[in-house]
Amino acid sequence: MAEKKYVFDFEEGDASKKDLLGGKGANLAEMTRLGFPVPPGFTVTTEACKDYLRTGGFPEGLWDEIVEAVRRLEQKTNKKLGDAENPLLVSVRSGAPLSMPGMMDTVLNLGLNNETVKGLIKNTGDERFAYDSYRRFIQMFSDIVLKVERNIFEKEITKKKEEKGVKLDTELTAEDWKELVERFKEIVREETGEEFPTDPWDQLRKAVEAVFNSWNNPRAQVYRRINKISDDLGTAVNVQAMVFGNMGNDSATGVCFTRNPSTGEKELFGEYLVNAQGEDVVAGIRTPQPIQKMKEEIPEAFEQLLKLMDTLEKHYRDMQDIEFTVEKGKLYMLQTRSGKRTAKAAVRIAVEMVHEGLINKEEAVMRVKPEQLDQLLHPQIDPNAKVEVLTKGLPASPGAATGKVVFDADLAEELGKKGEKVILVRWETTPDDIHGIVEAQGILTSHGGMTSHAAVVARGMGKPCVVGAEEVKINEEAKLFKVGDVVVREGDIITIDGSTGNVMLGEVPVVQPELTGELEELLKWADEIRKIGVRTNADTPEDARRAREFGAEGIGLCRTEHMFFGENRLPIVRQMILAEDEESRKEALDKLLPMQRGDFEGIFREMNGLPVTIRLLDPPLHEFLPSYTELSVKLVEKKLGGASKEEVEEIENLARRVKAMSEMNPMLGLRGCRLGLVFPGVYEMQVKAIIEAAINVKKQGYEPVVEITIPLVALAEELRILKERLNKVAKEVIEREGIDISYKFGTMIELPRAALTADEIAEHADFFSFGTNDLTQTTFGFSRDDAEGKFLPRYLEEKILKENPFEVLDKKGVGKLLEIASELGRSTNPELKLGICGEHGGEPSSIEFAYKVGLDYVSCSPFRVPIARLAAAQATLKNA
Amino acid sequence: MAEKKYVFDFEEGDASKKDLLGGKGANLAEMTRLGFPVPPGFTVTTEACKDYLRTGGFPEGLWDEIVEAVRRLEQKTNKKLGDAENPLLVSVRSGAPLSMPGMMDTVLNLGLNNETVKGLIKNTGDERFAYDSYRRFIQMFSDIVLKVERNIFEKEITKKKEEKGVKLDTELTAEDWKELVERFKEIVREETGEEFPTDPWDQLRKAVEAVFNSWNNPRAQVYRRINKISDDLGTAVNVQAMVFGNMGNDSATGVCFTRNPSTGEKELFGEYLVNAQGEDVVAGIRTPQPIQKMKEEIPEAFEQLLKLMDTLEKHYRDMQDIEFTVEKGKLYMLQTRSGKRTAKAAVRIAVEMVHEGLINKEEAVMRVKPEQLDQLLHPQIDPNAKVEVLTKGLPASPGAATGKVVFDADLAEELGKKGEKVILVRWETTPDDIHGIVEAQGILTSHGGMTSHAAVVARGMGKPCVVGAEEVKINEEAKLFKVGDVVVREGDIITIDGSTGNVMLGEVPVVQPELTGELEELLKWADEIRKIGVRTNADTPEDARRAREFGAEGIGLCRTEHMFFGENRLPIVRQMILAEDEESRKEALDKLLPMQRGDFEGIFREMNGLPVTIRLLDPPLHEFLPSYTELSVKLVEKKLGGASKEEVEEIENLARRVKAMSEMNPMLGLRGCRLGLVFPGVYEMQVKAIIEAAINVKKQGYEPVVEITIPLVALAEELRILKERLNKVAKEVIEREGIDISYKFGTMIELPRAALTADEIAEHADFFSFGTNDLTQTTFGFSRDDAEGKFLPRYLEEKILKENPFEVLDKKGVGKLLEIASELGRSTNPELKLGICGEHGGEPSSIEFAYKVGLDYVSCSPFRVPIARLAAAQATLKNA
Repeated sequence: MAEKKYVFDFEEGDASKKDLLGGKGANLAEMTRLGFPVPPGFTVTTEACKDYLRTGGFPEGLWDEIVEAVRRLEQKTNKKLGDAENPLLVSVRSGAPLSMPGMMDTVLNLGLNNETVKGLIKNTGDERFAYDSYRRFIQMFSDIVLKVERNIFEKEITKKKEEKGVKLDTELTAEDWKELVERFKEIVREETGEEFPTDPWDQLRKAVEAVFNSWNNPRAQVYRRINKISDDLGTAVNVQAMVFGNMGNDSATGVCFTRNPSTGEKELFGEYLVNAQGEDVVAGIRTPQPIQKMKEEIPEAFEQLLKLMDTLEKHYRDMQDIEFTVEKGKLYMLQTRSGKRTAKAAVRIAVEMVHEGLINKEEAVMRVKPEQLDQLLHPQIDPNAKVEVLTKGLPASPGAATGKVVFDADLAEELGKKGEKVILVRWETTPDDIHGIVEAQGILTSHGGMTSHAAVVARGMGKPCVVGAEEVKINEEAKLFKVGDVVVREGDIITIDGSTGNVMLGEVPVVQPELTGELEELLKWADEIRKIGVRTNADTPEDARRAREFGAEGIGLCRTEHMFFGENRLPIVRQMILAEDEESRKEALDKLLPMQRGDFEGIFREMNGLPVTIRLLDPPLHEFLPSYTELSVKLVEKKLGGASKEEVEEIENLARRVKAMSEMNPMLGLRGCRLGLVFPGVYEMQVKAIIEAAINVKKQGYEPVVEITIPLVALAEELRILKERLNKVAKEVIEREGIDISYKFGTMIELPRAALTADEIAEHADFFSFGTNDLTQTTFGFSRDDAEGKFLPRYLEEKILKENPFEVLDKKGVGKLLEIASELGRSTNPELKLGICGEHGGEPSSIEFAYKVGLDYVSCSPFRVPIARLAAAQATLKNA
Repeated sequence: MAEKKYVFDFEEGDASKKDLLGGKGANLAEMTRLGFPVPPGFTVTTEACKDYLRTGGFPEGLWDEIVEAVRRLEQKTNKKLGDAENPLLVSVRSGAPLSMPGMMDTVLNLGLNNETVKGLIKNTGDERFAYDSYRRFIQMFSDIVLKVERNIFEKEITKKKEEKGVKLDTELTAEDWKELVERFKEIVREETGEEFPTDPWDQLRKAVEAVFNSWNNPRAQVYRRINKISDDLGTAVNVQAMVFGNMGNDSATGVCFTRNPSTGEKELFGEYLVNAQGEDVVAGIRTPQPIQKMKEEIPEAFEQLLKLMDTLEKHYRDMQDIEFTVEKGKLYMLQTRSGKRTAKAAVRIAVEMVHEGLINKEEAVMRVKPEQLDQLLHPQIDPNAKVEVLTKGLPASPGAATGKVVFDADLAEELGKKGEKVILVRWETTPDDIHGIVEAQGILTSHGGMTSHAAVVARGMGKPCVVGAEEVKINEEAKLFKVGDVVVREGDIITIDGSTGNVMLGEVPVVQPELTGELEELLKWADEIRKIGVRTNADTPEDARRAREFGAEGIGLCRTEHMFFGENRLPIVRQMILAEDEESRKEALDKLLPMQRGDFEGIFREMNGLPVTIRLLDPPLHEFLPSYTELSVKLVEKKLGGASKEEVEEIENLARRVKAMSEMNPMLGLRGCRLGLVFPGVYEMQVKAIIEAAINVKKQGYEPVVEITIPLVALAEELRILKERLNKVAKEVIEREGIDISYKFGTMIELPRAALTADEIAEHADFFSFGTNDLTQTTFGFSRDDAEGKFLPRYLEEKILKENPFEVLDKKGVGKLLEIASELGRSTNPELKLGICGEHGGEPSSIEFAYKVGLDYVSCSPFRVPIARLAAAQATLKNA
């Protein structure tokens, strides 16, 4: 095996060698290759780092290579490391293949000691500059390499300023810095028990080692875990001849972007400081100037910079984030990389670059992170606002909302209708609160999880919602809530952020979403690319319209139960559930039929020509009933309060029937298709309503595309029987009306057994809709409501789980069931259509998984449709 | 293809041809082949039946073959079908490959008409006999072939007897029967609009067709579905020359067994009627005589019968159930088959036949149905008792119990301790009822399912229990319960049958179980054969001892939570759960430690030398807490009742904390290893107690074999962390005590995700214990408590499910996960031990599945250990 080459001069690399040279090194090499004014230097490879970490010492030959590289650098700069006359000074910087804040960053001015500083004075004629550079070097080196706390030095500077009665660092003299240099060295001796290294070679070796070791420092490890960066990459080390932006008023240092990273506008954007080194910008002692001002101050360098920026952007075909230094009027490029940007900017830049011919549509689509779009689709807390967070709950429905605290739904409705903005604050919400939720700006609950009533309803309405904010202790009687010692009374203003779960006192500035023309254009390209459909989960005509505007190609899940929660319907629904004979049940169903039909008509009209998948009633019936505990308490109150015998008996009767309906584990009880089998009337009414609605809108000239899905199937036989029964109902309606409606029957795959026996089930289904919310619950044995309140946060904190499986599809477990079900299902029914309609349908990594498994579509909430369209296109491109 | 042969004379077949000739035909052929006195005849094959049913008519050649066979029969008997002088009469009987009551059975005396009856008179000289035979034929033929209701004829006979002023059929004369024959033909004309067929060939063809068609009659279809008999088998038809047991006092008909089918004793057992046809025995008009009496009445035939019986048993090597007829002193054998028998008899016969050298041990083991053994292991309602069932619940814990109705646990304890027998009747039981359950003979609840508290506790104690008897409406205040109009008051005697779910008024005779020496011997042979271990689920030293007596080879599941329900422990457990700080939690745990240690010591001593798998705490903690609803009601009562502020506050405080612990779906909430991760102290205390107990008994000279299992793992990381933590605790104890204890760590596989990622989990486990109860719940999405109360009965009734998946392992879904998990688990850990410890561990078909998947052991409740041993041996033999 040829010996490894551990060190590359900038001239030897290029942008493609990121893995070996790190991002920074590769880009420096690229710029060098392009003939840009880059101070010369070399990169120690990630391979060297990995070998070092494996063996715990410099691998054979490495130091020799570094020495040789320094020799070459000396030739190029005509300076010499450690030379008292004409010393070479270098910067040492880490540079991993992926950007990694939290690692060791930069040591500047390496090579200085009591001898070489004299050479620097001689060369620059500026003693103060030289000692300032020297003390900076000691500070940085001590901090980063020797692990001496930075603020010990800062204190010493402060002390010196006090002694001298001055306020700014710039007011200290050369002599002051010189004294401080000696003091700093003493500090190092005190803190480490050793002398500060004076040999530049020794300094260099130690700095390189420190960079290597920083790969495994705890902050870096945590960062990698969170960002899913492999531990095996290692970091490179860049050693580069120093240039100085602090050599007078014809010197400067700055950063600039080739476009505006906030808005995406194609304009010069950046800032700089005259007579400064990079860290001064960071330190914030002096306020940097807008880059435009450089035109006046250092015109030549400015013009050159403009040209280079343009070249760089065209070369990299992306917006660049550039660091530069001007030393005595001469421009040096120190770094370039693709710049971070807001969602808005990302979209605009990507689209405009296509128009400019810089990139193609596929590249544009890959340039925007789907999750980022969320920012654009809801009102957001102004990112520039100073926000103080009172407490935090679960981010149940995104967006920000501000309003008066109100503790009951009636008052919320009353105030809301008057035009006042209110936030409804409840222990948990129930169907009885709907009228208040409708009128509130947002919802805050102290209990419940991501699928609690409040969360589901709020997401359906696109209304900001924070749930499970457990620190919020509500005292309804006293009309207040407490968070620790803070008391918030009814009428006080609060702001909730449903995107983060934050709860804040008072009003916090909010920015409104913009659906720009660029976004629409980008998504149109995404649509051309993607091979997996995007539908929406929508239960109302309003949701359907919004989703269609956002580009949904159909409804993948229309939940009929939410229609049952309507204020005027709940009493009828209760009558149906509690019916003690078939007659009174039928009576209630007859009353519900025209209402349901109306719901469906509205939705069919909005989705004209697009498929609408309607799920028959799914939740346990007692969700529609009052609480047994509350009834029991009421009963005792009435009894002891001397209420009439009739009144007591009525409550007793109700309580008895509610208790009979109650279940230990309602999620696994009498719900879904089990309802359809035990109380056939409900599903029959629903199918009647669906087909009648389809016929009615067809008469009006619309084109309804009907898909009916049967939930919670565990056994092929359940589906077979229900399909047979409901087909009969549908055919009767069609025959009676004499208008033909074609419709499909499918099933939810949301129980492990359904997935494992999908071959049998597929024989009775036109389509499968993967209900990954429930499938995640049963596969993990996690009740989402309980898990998110009781142990999931801890699991995530302790990294027992890397991600919340209710947000990001668990590929190993739930995903395996999806694969099994898809394969088995298609083995017996090759025409089977497959879709996913859990919340995962709007999550990019889950969408990619769905695409890879070969599903036909994903379905998500209206506000996530644009995200899904983009993610679906990216999935196609990534797996091309 | 050679033409099919559809008809076989008895001389052409043998016992091996059951599929083709049916059971009856094959055995008749076999007896003919052996030279037994069998009336000659032939069999129409099942193939003929199948071809007939497929085409809807006689297949080509069939009728010709039948005609030829009749001709041969005429030659053998020297009689002629339809001959007025010497007519051949035949019986026509169905005979499927498997015994199938519910199908068409027998037409006797076929061939009679107004002509041939004269020949019969001439041949027998008995006119009365001839017309009696004739009218019987018309009745049977009309009933079975022509579908005329039987009781129309019976009414006519009754009318005739009234006319004649007589009471018994035997008092009717030849003339009476002759008149009735004509009347019967009129009835047929009235009912069917057609003449009764007089042509014997026509009679025969119609009878054969009727047998064919009876294969698809609804009763037969239902029977096949229930007994899982394939619809494709078809039935054979046996046509045989008639012999008459009713030709005088030297004629007789009877049935006999080669051994006593109730006790298994090797003795002559049977009964007969002189001068009678088979149907007289069934009709019950005359009481049959014990077979021994035949020795006096028809000695020659009796001696011959004895010899033939002995030969038959030796030939078939099993107890035979024989039908015979004696015609004028001559013995004819009409049927032989393996006889049905009680469990007790089955065991005794199998074992004695081995001793007699008739069969080998393997055959003996295959001769007893494992499920039958259940009869032998619990007190049973006397099968001879006349029982009137008041209502029915779920059979939660087998055995019968009688006692006074008591509605509260305190009274049950009080009376029980006084030696009175009581049945505790509750809506549902709670941990607070334990002291009452201990002293009761049995438990009856109107709510809850097979895993409700009452069911689990009762099974653990081996105490009869019926749960979910929904018709039982309890009125605790009035101290009574009602079932419909029947009122049962406290102190009334009832009997419950936990094997069937029946509830009966008053005392019902009970038979006590016997563990005979034969059973022990049989099970010893089973142990020699089986290749899969049998352990027990036991939570107490008493259970452990009993299970060991029953042959358990270790404990596969020791649930520690039941130890927490003890009367003196519950308050401490509650203190631990409700602790608001770590200190008071630790205090409670410190109190529990010595108790748990004591539990484990007792169990280790009983299981000396055998493995004990202890499962760490599993259920949701609020199972140990009082009900929130009850607390809320109490709170209102106290408040309105003017209780002191302190008292109110105390309840308020408790209610608040109970509510905070409450969960929507506790089965999927904070339980199992999640408890161990969120409240580390509990598992640490338990492991400490386990290791300390093992050390203590080791000091006493016992040999504890410790296996610790961690429940409800969904993620490998859960197991890894807990194992690491608990290993540390164990090692600390071992180090402190200076006595080495080896122990293993494993996990329950009871969630689909655990099965699907078993390869990762196995890296941290010494063994897997399949918790198929929970795995069934999550795979189906069925909460057992809710399902068995709300929809499972309906599913079973409507055949949506063929079997209750909580009793019989669902091979397609849950079983697939077992296969996946076993394969994946062993792929990363070839040493992995696998066992099953759900209730399925004691169910024969599930045991066979476990054996086929390659598990190392099954574990079941103590009373099912013998069943499991036998089933395991049969699984080995069946799959050899």
